[in-house]
Amino acid sequence: MINIAKQAKQASIELAQFGNQQKNQALFAIAEALESRTDEILTANQQDVEKAKQQGISEAIIDRLLLTPERIIGIANDVRNVASLADPVGQIIDGGMLDSGLRIQRQRVPLGVILTIYEARPNVTIDVASLCLKTGNAVILRGGKETTLTNAILVEVVQTALEQSGLPKLAVQAVTNPDRALLLELLKLDRYIDMLIPRGGAGLHQFCKENSTIPVIVGGIGVCHLYVEASADLDKALGVISNAKTQRPSTCNTLETLLVDKAIADQFLPKLAEYLSDKKVTLHSDAFAENVQNQWQIQPLDHDHLSQEWLSLDLSVVVVDGIDHAIEHIRTFGSQHSESILTSNHALAQKFVHQVDAAAVYINASTRFTDGAQFGLGAEVAVSTQKLHARGPMGLEALTTYKWVCEGDYLSRA
Amino acid sequence: MINIAKQAKQASIELAQFGNQQKNQALFAIAEALESRTDEILTANQQDVEKAKQQGISEAIIDRLLLTPERIIGIANDVRNVASLADPVGQIIDGGMLDSGLRIQRQRVPLGVILTIYEARPNVTIDVASLCLKTGNAVILRGGKETTLTNAILVEVVQTALEQSGLPKLAVQAVTNPDRALLLELLKLDRYIDMLIPRGGAGLHQFCKENSTIPVIVGGIGVCHLYVEASADLDKALGVISNAKTQRPSTCNTLETLLVDKAIADQFLPKLAEYLSDKKVTLHSDAFAENVQNQWQIQPLDHDHLSQEWLSLDLSVVVVDGIDHAIEHIRTFGSQHSESILTSNHALAQKFVHQVDAAAVYINASTRFTDGAQFGLGAEVAVSTQKLHARGPMGLEALTTYKWVCEGDYLSRA
Repeated sequence: MINIAKQAKQASIELAQFGNQQKNQALFAIAEALESRTDEILTANQQDVEKAKQQGISEAIIDRLLLTPERIIGIANDVRNVASLADPVGQIIDGGMLDSGLRIQRQRVPLGVILTIYEARPNVTIDVASLCLKTGNAVILRGGKETTLTNAILVEVVQTALEQSGLPKLAVQAVTNPDRALLLELLKLDRYIDMLIPRGGAGLHQFCKENSTIPVIVGGIGVCHLYVEASADLDKALGVISNAKTQRPSTCNTLETLLVDKAIADQFLPKLAEYLSDKKVTLHSDAFAENVQNQWQIQPLDHDHLSQEWLSLDLSVVVVDGIDHAIEHIRTFGSQHSESILTSNHALAQKFVHQVDAAAVYINASTRFTDGAQFGLGAEVAVSTQKLHARGPMGLEALTTYKWVCEGDYLSRA
Repeated sequence: MINIAKQAKQASIELAQFGNQQKNQALFAIAEALESRTDEILTANQQDVEKAKQQGISEAIIDRLLLTPERIIGIANDVRNVASLADPVGQIIDGGMLDSGLRIQRQRVPLGVILTIYEARPNVTIDVASLCLKTGNAVILRGGKETTLTNAILVEVVQTALEQSGLPKLAVQAVTNPDRALLLELLKLDRYIDMLIPRGGAGLHQFCKENSTIPVIVGGIGVCHLYVEASADLDKALGVISNAKTQRPSTCNTLETLLVDKAIADQFLPKLAEYLSDKKVTLHSDAFAENVQNQWQIQPLDHDHLSQEWLSLDLSVVVVDGIDHAIEHIRTFGSQHSESILTSNHALAQKFVHQVDAAAVYINASTRFTDGAQFGLGAEVAVSTQKLHARGPMGLEALTTYKWVCEGDYLSRA
């Protein structure tokens, strides 16, 4: 592992010498190579898929793992899209002339080496590699064991394209040995690795927090709430709630618990049950009148589930006694990802924005907007739910740091 | 420990409701209280000092620990200075209207709860507390065991002033029990504590990196270099070198190793020896001619010391064969703090800035400028030598994070 880390550090030093144009040429070469070597990639991927099927791995995971010619074209086009983004490296954040006579600037620079640990999605391999290359970072990719052969060929394709473009090929490396002991070793190499981005479930994030001396960006877990305040437009509310729950239920910005104000519960809940039943949503609640509960087959509320994601067409519904109770509920069960209030009351909207502690806070909008592309960042490395360095959707800027560049005329401090 | 952390989180939630004016009033009240209760503070401090003397603790540490009426006035004025700074909380970093119709803003908000672990400086207690309060953060202070009584009275003074100002008194808490097991417990409370700033030696930083699940800001270790390139003005160079080494040798931005280009070594080294001898600097080098070595009592170079701080009037001197060798030396032995080149050659200056990986990189200036006040930040929480969140001197902004505030008109994602 230490050799991989040292090679990555060395590659990051070399990579930092290349400008945006050269990095873009390499990205275009990678996109071309993915397309021209589609057959090799599909062959390797087919072997991974066969093995996964033999091992009885779930259909959902096999679908994530599966590549098709169309998916490879999509991945290649995503790489071209990354090339088209503005390069944040070299940007002058701020600066000026100090009283002492020192000219000072904060310049944006690559972080260095980034380690990412993820699961069965081979598109992540190319996605993260291209974002890291764009920002002049070397990357170590540790994918799930289901994708060993696919990742091996993908990284070989990338490395060959890098080499042909004159960039250091070890700027992108894969760890394909799934041994946990090796992972533990890697997590201690903070001397060479500058940032760790785990992309997976809560268990992986906790493991990284506990075992890594490399700074970790945790995120991607979204126990998101939407609070229907008493003054909300209840007809319009139905559409937003449905969007937040059903547009893509497996994502981290999906609504998991709906909070309904007590003052409008009697009026709103039956409408809600009818509307969401049409959308195939299963409600979990103790707040509905018995006849409504029976009519729409509403399940009892599972209190232990309130701090977990459904990631399915299930929705917990809880009645709260005013905004303070709603905020308290979110504080207790939320994951600081995305939280929304529906209201016509300006003061309450402001209170919610001010007091709810989350990466993204919404007024009269669906939580589904928390996304790099939706937020105009052009790309998304991850969604951070911690507070240091980057919060919410992380774009290219989150893959950089800065240095203070200072110049004087043989200047001493007074 | 968990109670302290929970209380801090609760206090941080309450504190976030107060505006800049109320926080400033509390800061002025703290400054007043420090002055009006000077006698009590000095009595407690005297007991700490007596105990330290009995335990044979070094004069240098006792001097750091010692408070005097003048020092307390200085500390109180520092608090007033913090009050006079601009409050970064509430600042709109960026924003706009997205194509989807979502109005979006990044708003600067407090981090929440900050834990700091430091040594025998009671001024740090007040300094960190005032910076955290200014930015709406609660703080847990874990000072050195030598300052137990002093910190206890200082925190009591702060808490009373907070209470009288209507702010939550538990926004500032001290852990005065020096038990390491308690510290270990505290380091796992990432659910309540948002950032850990250790201020101490390399051992403390390593301990925190290895044991904390709270994000850690490491820093404060400065193995700083200055490279005298062949085209440098050698007379002016002497002044800058002397300033970097002697202006305040115990600080982290002090020069520890001088790199002299081979091309000018014969000409420059004798001048250097004479000049720095006048300044009481002890040189450690194998590069001087034997007669020069003897005349100025130059010590042999200790290779094992090249990656450590002297923190004294000692200086290692190494001859390097050109800029690549200088950069390689810095990469091997530096701590990514502050690095300087003296040169008249623009291209080499740019190369140094580009290739040296450090928080601050200087052209023709002393490394001693790496400091929050010198950099115009108004205050300094710590000097970070890691790359995430904040790098180099950390001002008030580094005690904040941001949230994405989004508003629509019952807007759903397409």
